[in-house]
Amino acid sequence: MLEEKINFKNKYSKFNKHWSPRIIAEMNDYQFKLAKIKGEFVWHNHKDTDETFIVIDGEMILKLRDRDVILQEGEMFVVPKGVDHKPCAQKECKILVVEPRGVVNTGDVESDLTINEDMWI
Amino acid sequence: MLEEKINFKNKYSKFNKHWSPRIIAEMNDYQFKLAKIKGEFVWHNHKDTDETFIVIDGEMILKLRDRDVILQEGEMFVVPKGVDHKPCAQKECKILVVEPRGVVNTGDVESDLTINEDMWI
Repeated sequence: MLEEKINFKNKYSKFNKHWSPRIIAEMNDYQFKLAKIKGEFVWHNHKDTDETFIVIDGEMILKLRDRDVILQEGEMFVVPKGVDHKPCAQKECKILVVEPRGVVNTGDVESDLTINEDMWI
Repeated sequence: MLEEKINFKNKYSKFNKHWSPRIIAEMNDYQFKLAKIKGEFVWHNHKDTDETFIVIDGEMILKLRDRDVILQEGEMFVVPKGVDHKPCAQKECKILVVEPRGVVNTGDVESDLTINEDMWI
């Protein structure tokens, strides 16, 4: 057993780039990823999986086609598979994303923001 | 789309029983559960799945056979499948557990603390 506990603040100190999720843990074939977000992401969906957003610090706006969901520290939302969404944040917001291994951040959309590599911290 | 955002504090206000996890969300076939814990749980393991503990408020001691892992707010630990563990907390601690649907809280052990029903809040 070499597993160590994970401290979110410590992990967030290791990167600054926005919209660049970093993997901090795996549970079976699921991954926990920390991200710092600011500004507007792209509309996209994940056709094969739900995706969970948990706000660790700050405030994000999770835009859906029919409404905006405002999430603050201590709040979460599960985006069902296939549902278009667009994460946004006016000020930098720190989030925890939970989803299956291999999910691409921009889903079905190719964008300058697309990240295809696994980045662990 | 009827999904609502989930606020941890609001959900915690809906129950008080210790060692009685409540389901707040599902992502694919995984569940997010909130629990209030205090005192000592039982030694157990989950032979088929990893299990994730995230501390939302307070401090827990996750006893493993070879060491104690102390987790505070903003910290998490993934217990690998098959690994014996015993959650404890000196004062009430609020945690978020992530694991596949159908996992029994006491794993392979039958105990007075065993909960076999899904309790949503």
